[in-house]
Amino acid sequence: MFDVLIRNCDVLHVKDGKVWIDIVQDIGIVGQRIVSIEPSPAELPEASRVIFAAGLLAIPGLMNTHAHVPMVLFRGMVEDVTVTSWFNDHIWPLESNLTSEDIYWGAMLGMAEMIENGVTSVADHYFDMDEVAQAVEQSGMRATLCWAVFAHGGVEKLERTCEFVEKWQGKADGRITTYMGPHAPYTANPDFLRLSAQKAKELRTGIHIHVSETQAQVDLSMRQYGITPVQQLEETGIFEVPTILGHCRFPTEDDLKLMSQRETGVAHAPKTYMKLGETEVQLKQYQQAAVPVGLATDGAASSNTLDILEQLRMMVLAQKTAANDPLYMTIPEALEIAFRGSARVLHQPDLGEIEVGKFADIALIRQDGISSFPRYNPAANLIYSTRSSDVDTVLCNGKVLLQGGRLLTIDKAEIKREISHRLERLSERVPGRRIATYPT
Amino acid sequence: MFDVLIRNCDVLHVKDGKVWIDIVQDIGIVGQRIVSIEPSPAELPEASRVIFAAGLLAIPGLMNTHAHVPMVLFRGMVEDVTVTSWFNDHIWPLESNLTSEDIYWGAMLGMAEMIENGVTSVADHYFDMDEVAQAVEQSGMRATLCWAVFAHGGVEKLERTCEFVEKWQGKADGRITTYMGPHAPYTANPDFLRLSAQKAKELRTGIHIHVSETQAQVDLSMRQYGITPVQQLEETGIFEVPTILGHCRFPTEDDLKLMSQRETGVAHAPKTYMKLGETEVQLKQYQQAAVPVGLATDGAASSNTLDILEQLRMMVLAQKTAANDPLYMTIPEALEIAFRGSARVLHQPDLGEIEVGKFADIALIRQDGISSFPRYNPAANLIYSTRSSDVDTVLCNGKVLLQGGRLLTIDKAEIKREISHRLERLSERVPGRRIATYPT
Repeated sequence: MFDVLIRNCDVLHVKDGKVWIDIVQDIGIVGQRIVSIEPSPAELPEASRVIFAAGLLAIPGLMNTHAHVPMVLFRGMVEDVTVTSWFNDHIWPLESNLTSEDIYWGAMLGMAEMIENGVTSVADHYFDMDEVAQAVEQSGMRATLCWAVFAHGGVEKLERTCEFVEKWQGKADGRITTYMGPHAPYTANPDFLRLSAQKAKELRTGIHIHVSETQAQVDLSMRQYGITPVQQLEETGIFEVPTILGHCRFPTEDDLKLMSQRETGVAHAPKTYMKLGETEVQLKQYQQAAVPVGLATDGAASSNTLDILEQLRMMVLAQKTAANDPLYMTIPEALEIAFRGSARVLHQPDLGEIEVGKFADIALIRQDGISSFPRYNPAANLIYSTRSSDVDTVLCNGKVLLQGGRLLTIDKAEIKREISHRLERLSERVPGRRIATYPT
Repeated sequence: MFDVLIRNCDVLHVKDGKVWIDIVQDIGIVGQRIVSIEPSPAELPEASRVIFAAGLLAIPGLMNTHAHVPMVLFRGMVEDVTVTSWFNDHIWPLESNLTSEDIYWGAMLGMAEMIENGVTSVADHYFDMDEVAQAVEQSGMRATLCWAVFAHGGVEKLERTCEFVEKWQGKADGRITTYMGPHAPYTANPDFLRLSAQKAKELRTGIHIHVSETQAQVDLSMRQYGITPVQQLEETGIFEVPTILGHCRFPTEDDLKLMSQRETGVAHAPKTYMKLGETEVQLKQYQQAAVPVGLATDGAASSNTLDILEQLRMMVLAQKTAANDPLYMTIPEALEIAFRGSARVLHQPDLGEIEVGKFADIALIRQDGISSFPRYNPAANLIYSTRSSDVDTVLCNGKVLLQGGRLLTIDKAEIKREISHRLERLSERVPGRRIATYPT
């Protein structure tokens, strides 16, 4: 007797460099986990809830390994500017407008978008994270949450984020994991990083941090400290706990070697990099060093969407271009990063695969649209022609969050109403008021 | 009294480096053209057909300036291969399987996809073009059609394509324009090009041709003829008629100067280039030389979709990356290329703008999805976060082809049925059988 049975679906598998699809399968779910996957028997198995899924492609729920979810509030507001101006003239001034309530509604909006796009897990890096945790609880998503802090916020702020870690760890039926979140080596000095590491160890948790996003940041670190930002993570003890590295686009050879020996992985958000006109770095460097890479959206203030299928497509295309090689970043390589890679970056071994014993985090994708026809190669269609609007049904932790394209846990109209009357205030930039300063 | 009235829509305008949106407008259509655009009056104007469009964004119908539409039949079949292998081992062998009927159904499938994606015009470059013309007639799209020929097909084949040009020129209520289509300088020798130019002049029409797609093609031309492929177009008289240049990614400075003095433009299909791992060329070179650029999908066997909004997003992101400059390819620059640029490439001055006197080729885009919220900047949303599935209604030549996301002129189920039973035969590669050989 299953709690949920997904009936007659096709199941995508990615393993050992191979991609294959088992057609007409039944996936049985009990509680939070997958308990059986088998060719659909003629007779309907017993289940409390049956999702008829003939023709739908079951893929592991997509994972967003680095985001600032509430920033969907600023979607489309800051365009065609340099990185420095993006931070100093726009985003950091704008973020000083945010109240806790704004952040709650922004998080809800972002989660609605992610669930519609088949995303079931997110590693979120923002502030007022109690609000985001409440949104996670309500939306039904899985999340690794950290309360991002700058050194100038002071030690008290760091203490406050420890309370957050303790309060929410393992909450929402185990869907919430909490990490520490020192913002980045360029906004948190070594002492602050050291203290963050110490707190994370005490709390037996991990750290989610931006690092080596640009070559300029690496150069600045070399000038200031004589070591790279990645080496700073080692130096200050950050690498003694599991870490998620936001972007880490400019590691040195030594950095890569170090990273391969630590419990860490890189969150890759190509759409943001392209939009900000940044050189495309080759993911080969991480693959060769056996450093896990996962997909991410970053915040929608830079990437405009929280859409992992879009980032997957961008990654493949940008990487083939950067490598100048159409034989690089093949379909199996790309899907390996999207699924197993992202799960490794999140330190969640029970995600990224549709297998017995794993979490029942699953997206069912319609394949009846024109852009999925003909269906010679459903995996190629998934990467190159599926639309995010083809996501039909989403389960997370065994619960159904989206069915027939309709959100079951979130009231979109309410979210829009709540946000609409905040927009005027949110879009105001008060001279001199900003949450931090980006170094130039 | 209007034939069609689009009521209460928002209208996108792109002009002189500026983008703006006039909200709550009525667009009046008589016959094939827009006859009025004005702030919606309180009282509903008289019209045979009213499209209630409050909250929808009216944009000029999207234009696909270079495609091989029936190749949607091969979507997803050939992945992760080099350009040479793509042609010689896969596509040209596969294309030898195509019957006229296959091409008709492939064209119908491609047009269904384009209309759903808001594309109203296509410049198609394929063979058995009577079939494609019939599909255009039935689908209601606008098209510039040419029957592509290789020199090895012989002069008789070229004569046959002249019959096609004469038969279909101006047909389907003026929606069909016919061009000559010598395939490319590397598959059509100078005599063949010269003859094509002469025929085009006699028929008072233009030429649509691939040129300088790769640096290797330019090098080959220099070795064989001592001039570039673009110079060959001048040399052989091709440039004495209006031309559409497929790709033309590696023009020399002299080529650009020449192109700026001829009635020509470049069809740009970034997704194909990225997928084939080709260096991203900077569109600045054309802009600086005042050579028009338009958007294209190429065939779906390489780009996997016939989706111009996707190509627009890819172009912006790839160009900012290639230029290493987030200030390049701004929203107005990008929309200028998508609309006026594409219209210029097609030599269709009555397309690419929603203005009185222009053709009533219009796409209405839903803005109520999460990815379009908040709506600080609808133009940014259009480029960076709108989904093609947000296309609600499409008009071409004053006729409604799509409404509420439903195709009115095309039966998708019939097309899929017709194509499904052909797939086994279409996917067979017979050793030694191919339509041409790609030079290496």
